[in-house]
Amino acid sequence: MCESCDIKFGTRGDKAQLEEGNLFAPKFDDNGLITAIAQDHQTGKILMVAFMNEVALKKTIECGEAVYFSRSRQKLWHKGEESGNVQKIKAIYTDCDQDALVMEVEQIGNAACHVGYNSCFYRKIDGAVDGTVALTTTETEKVFDPKEVYGKK
Amino acid sequence: MCESCDIKFGTRGDKAQLEEGNLFAPKFDDNGLITAIAQDHQTGKILMVAFMNEVALKKTIECGEAVYFSRSRQKLWHKGEESGNVQKIKAIYTDCDQDALVMEVEQIGNAACHVGYNSCFYRKIDGAVDGTVALTTTETEKVFDPKEVYGKK
Repeated sequence: MCESCDIKFGTRGDKAQLEEGNLFAPKFDDNGLITAIAQDHQTGKILMVAFMNEVALKKTIECGEAVYFSRSRQKLWHKGEESGNVQKIKAIYTDCDQDALVMEVEQIGNAACHVGYNSCFYRKIDGAVDGTVALTTTETEKVFDPKEVYGKK
Repeated sequence: MCESCDIKFGTRGDKAQLEEGNLFAPKFDDNGLITAIAQDHQTGKILMVAFMNEVALKKTIECGEAVYFSRSRQKLWHKGEESGNVQKIKAIYTDCDQDALVMEVEQIGNAACHVGYNSCFYRKIDGAVDGTVALTTTETEKVFDPKEVYGKK
């Protein structure tokens, strides 16, 4: 993983500065995290959503590949470090109050999801079965077999 | 706001059921919230990201318009209730572990952001000024003047 972390973020000022200014002053939540959405830069498909802490975000900007913070493992997660399916950053956008990010990425291997699909959002809400909401799988086939890539864990 | 709330969600089972099953069993975080991304159903542009609690999600599914939970106001927020810019739901997707949602929406009024832009993600990270990360505004003009819509609050 890229080791450099020299860039700085701005200090969060008033509403006008945050919403209309040109200083990047991201807001991290009580757990020190910011929401980061990865979108395919060519198809516009939303591939996944995860979280970054300050170090992960700095590494992402400096190194040009998505680095998240895994909440379950409580550590930095260079996406693709195991599968090879890294996400090359094409552009990063922030929202009005600077507490969320959209990254336009080139998804190496064409699969963002550990289940093997192109996108993690491979199921659509589709009516109810006996009053309980059901899902329909919308991706027709997996790009890879997770057992081959990750083993049986 | 639509008052009905009769649908049920599934009980969260094991990893295989959550990832490959057809039962919608959303995971709400420690604050009872799930991340919800609104994407324009025609352009694919990501308009905004916010949160829903269980009631907000049920109302969104049943009523066909996005209802969020406002963390700052700690109450249900029927998007567009004040501006008229409601989000008509075209489809809702969930991700592999069912802790995030993508909604394809028709954005009435063509503006999702209270600042007046089509999308909340109107600024792009664009290099550094004296080592501090800077932003460039990428939307060329506002769809509405927030002072006219919301007053001066």
